[in-house]
Amino acid sequence: MESASPPDRPVGRGAKVRAAVHAATLAELVDNGYAALTVEAVAARAGVHKTTVYRRWKDRESLVVDALAGQAAADVPVPDTGSVEGDLRALARSLVAMVTGGSGPALLAAMFSGGAGLPEIAEARQQVFGDRLRRARPVVTRAVERGELPAGTDPGELLRTLAAPIYFRLLMTAEPVDAATADQAVRVALAAARAGALTCIHT
Amino acid sequence: MESASPPDRPVGRGAKVRAAVHAATLAELVDNGYAALTVEAVAARAGVHKTTVYRRWKDRESLVVDALAGQAAADVPVPDTGSVEGDLRALARSLVAMVTGGSGPALLAAMFSGGAGLPEIAEARQQVFGDRLRRARPVVTRAVERGELPAGTDPGELLRTLAAPIYFRLLMTAEPVDAATADQAVRVALAAARAGALTCIHT
Repeated sequence: MESASPPDRPVGRGAKVRAAVHAATLAELVDNGYAALTVEAVAARAGVHKTTVYRRWKDRESLVVDALAGQAAADVPVPDTGSVEGDLRALARSLVAMVTGGSGPALLAAMFSGGAGLPEIAEARQQVFGDRLRRARPVVTRAVERGELPAGTDPGELLRTLAAPIYFRLLMTAEPVDAATADQAVRVALAAARAGALTCIHT
Repeated sequence: MESASPPDRPVGRGAKVRAAVHAATLAELVDNGYAALTVEAVAARAGVHKTTVYRRWKDRESLVVDALAGQAAADVPVPDTGSVEGDLRALARSLVAMVTGGSGPALLAAMFSGGAGLPEIAEARQQVFGDRLRRARPVVTRAVERGELPAGTDPGELLRTLAAPIYFRLLMTAEPVDAATADQAVRVALAAARAGALTCIHT
């Protein structure tokens, strides 16, 4: 997002405005959904002028994409427990906590109903997942270095395999999603990875 | 659905009406989405009286749930190729063909946008998946009987593991979904099942 501040810039007035506008955007999404979200309402909620928002984000679509992507990055710390099983369990459990707790369900609903078919929301989903996958890659590369997983194990494939059953239950079958779901996702992803079923094949 | 004809009744006027109304319901979903769907429009499209529809389905929600569930059952024949790998590949490939071809993408969009948060659409999704899972269970039980998979392998867990990455790509990351996606889903599900990671654990 060229119009947004880089995530590693020093915390100052700019970063504070960005955080406030992001929080206001997510709150508006949760309260009113994507279709009803306006830059005016976000600005009012964040306590800034509308022009301040437009100086940083070119339109409401960029704002929503950036806020969702920022949220995703903030919410999933990358674990380093010393074992691939511990790391994957921490990742899966934090994903479950995020999608089931706090404003997670409302944000997920905003991403999947109303605006689900809109290109900008599809782009937000892709950014969110692309970002999470990139951030979590070290979990897999460290596991390969430690000899816990076969050489050539594809971090993206493994992390998709980990996340897929959690979202499948949430979105498709509406079955309960809890720590047991997370742990079962880890079992499956690890078994597949150890058997060499998650080595790079899509290249 | 108590108001609908049982699927195994002889083909006659009743079954023809049911098929015509189902087809009209799906066509309306594809053309106009769930929010705009009316019993009047479905009846007109099917060439029957509105009262004929109401005699069989108590409201538009029952109609949509029944039509989507019927579609799902019709579209996924249960393979019996003689090997679990062949059967799972056929299942995964027919799922990919269904969600990417014909009216599949439009029906998926109808199930996930607009009405995504409504209880009746959530119920339709659950019925669709519950029905598909039930129908495909013999693929897994036969594989266990042939000694291809460990005793205690949970058909539901295996079939969810097979479907989950396909829907994850479709709905979340918007990555391409094709025969290679299906085959990779088979690799993962089989590796997990053979390692005993898909034995009954949720009971």
